[in-house]
Amino acid sequence: MIGVDWGTSSFRAFRLDAAGRVLARLEAPRGILHIEPGGFPAALHAAIGPWLADGERHVLLSGMVGSRQGWVEAPYLPCPAGAAEIAAALVDVPFGLTGGGVRVKLVPGLSDADQTDTPEVMRGEETQIIGVLDRLETDEPGGEGIVCLPGSHSKWARIRGRRILAYRTYLSGEAFAALRAGTILGRMMQDGPHDPAGFARGLARSGEPGHLLHHLFGVRTLGLMGQLAETASASYLSGLLIGHEVRAALPAEALVHLIGTPGLCALYAEAILACGGTAGIMDENAAARGLAAIGGATRWD
Amino acid sequence: MIGVDWGTSSFRAFRLDAAGRVLARLEAPRGILHIEPGGFPAALHAAIGPWLADGERHVLLSGMVGSRQGWVEAPYLPCPAGAAEIAAALVDVPFGLTGGGVRVKLVPGLSDADQTDTPEVMRGEETQIIGVLDRLETDEPGGEGIVCLPGSHSKWARIRGRRILAYRTYLSGEAFAALRAGTILGRMMQDGPHDPAGFARGLARSGEPGHLLHHLFGVRTLGLMGQLAETASASYLSGLLIGHEVRAALPAEALVHLIGTPGLCALYAEAILACGGTAGIMDENAAARGLAAIGGATRWD
Repeated sequence: MIGVDWGTSSFRAFRLDAAGRVLARLEAPRGILHIEPGGFPAALHAAIGPWLADGERHVLLSGMVGSRQGWVEAPYLPCPAGAAEIAAALVDVPFGLTGGGVRVKLVPGLSDADQTDTPEVMRGEETQIIGVLDRLETDEPGGEGIVCLPGSHSKWARIRGRRILAYRTYLSGEAFAALRAGTILGRMMQDGPHDPAGFARGLARSGEPGHLLHHLFGVRTLGLMGQLAETASASYLSGLLIGHEVRAALPAEALVHLIGTPGLCALYAEAILACGGTAGIMDENAAARGLAAIGGATRWD
Repeated sequence: MIGVDWGTSSFRAFRLDAAGRVLARLEAPRGILHIEPGGFPAALHAAIGPWLADGERHVLLSGMVGSRQGWVEAPYLPCPAGAAEIAAALVDVPFGLTGGGVRVKLVPGLSDADQTDTPEVMRGEETQIIGVLDRLETDEPGGEGIVCLPGSHSKWARIRGRRILAYRTYLSGEAFAALRAGTILGRMMQDGPHDPAGFARGLARSGEPGHLLHHLFGVRTLGLMGQLAETASASYLSGLLIGHEVRAALPAEALVHLIGTPGLCALYAEAILACGGTAGIMDENAAARGLAAIGGATRWD
């Protein structure tokens, strides 16, 4: 089968064998924001046409391609859900650019409608989480696990019995970018490499008394008073925000499985350790594995 | 005397009699960011020249005009400080655009170097706070008072015995603008009048479990799920941020004296009441009164 992780800004496709191994992969900056209206079938065919010509018949899509701004809108599936529930809720997508026999299906996003909180939505992350459930089961057989996907909208999910029980989202990544670009804090930040000492200071600051909105002003005053270098200021802000997120989201002494880019996962691992937890960084093939697991649980006919 | 509140984006001047009453006032969009290098004497003379020609000899400036980006940098004066301490720390400013005898002095900003926290700085707000001390003394003779100046960088100050003891800053106003302009939250916000029901919902949400970074994502999902109108979304975000600030800054059951624009003060008053405090909105002449009080305590010769 072919699995496609089609997000807002990127497109990643995997050719998978029956055991879920990646036989071939391709990646392109063809996220859904770069596809003209009606252009989804042609964009998909341009990318995976050779694999289809080679005999592949089953295509599974996940990510923002199933959103209102995507190809076909797939209604959210409520938590708790695992591969079986997701496979039973796939949405058929009309393709029509091949001689026939090719089936294209879409993974629904996952919602969490806990009545004590605001609604939660994810699209794409559920597939990555499904992709690491085997590994979680090995680490904590039958137990409850925590998976974190750091990013613009970080997700913290609780897992039990190979199902996603519930999750919460934090806007930390997008808040970092907006505060850096749009406030006086950014004026005292010099571009450059990550500053580990600055990050560690921000992380430590996040555990001190005072609300985040107060801690943020300190980024400016520390710079103004010559106590924080312009080369360290962005990393300090990053440590502050990630520290606030982790302190709010981390259950006591939990083991957290991280899925994401290696650099960001390393920062979250540092924060989790600093807050008394333990962190494991999963390999980067979570999306491919998840697509394979859902595809394997799917009735294609 | 003449008092000038010269901030980043605006210039306000007051002609004051010996009792501190405002005889005349003028306002211009000539904040320090709009003054070319070396242009401060000319800009000041253009504004208050007629009053000088009429015999005024003493000019007191407060605000960002005393910052590194201003006319002359005035070192911060540490808390605690009142009108007497501030008057003793004024910085002389070379003027030279009149025949002589005109003295121009600058109010220093106030720092708060509590060792348990990051440094604090203000420029201009100290003068406004000094301007309401009379009223505070009437409300709570000899007692401790709380003054809040909402804005881009909201200040919460503790007052006792006509001195500013200590204060804390919250970046709420600037964070609101940056989150609205620079994140996905803003895409679901329609410009329009303040929405009182949306503000009240955001305020209530700020008191529910969960960190601000999590609550922020709810602004998006409530919109996505049709539970928050695009016309109410910006006010909801405003209520969320102001609510978080007030819950963090408000001492239990405190009476808070608010200084600022009437619209913003009304929102803060609503938040303070919702959090169990009491709020009083001071009149809008705090800057003029503060300049008069400091000027009255000054040895001009």
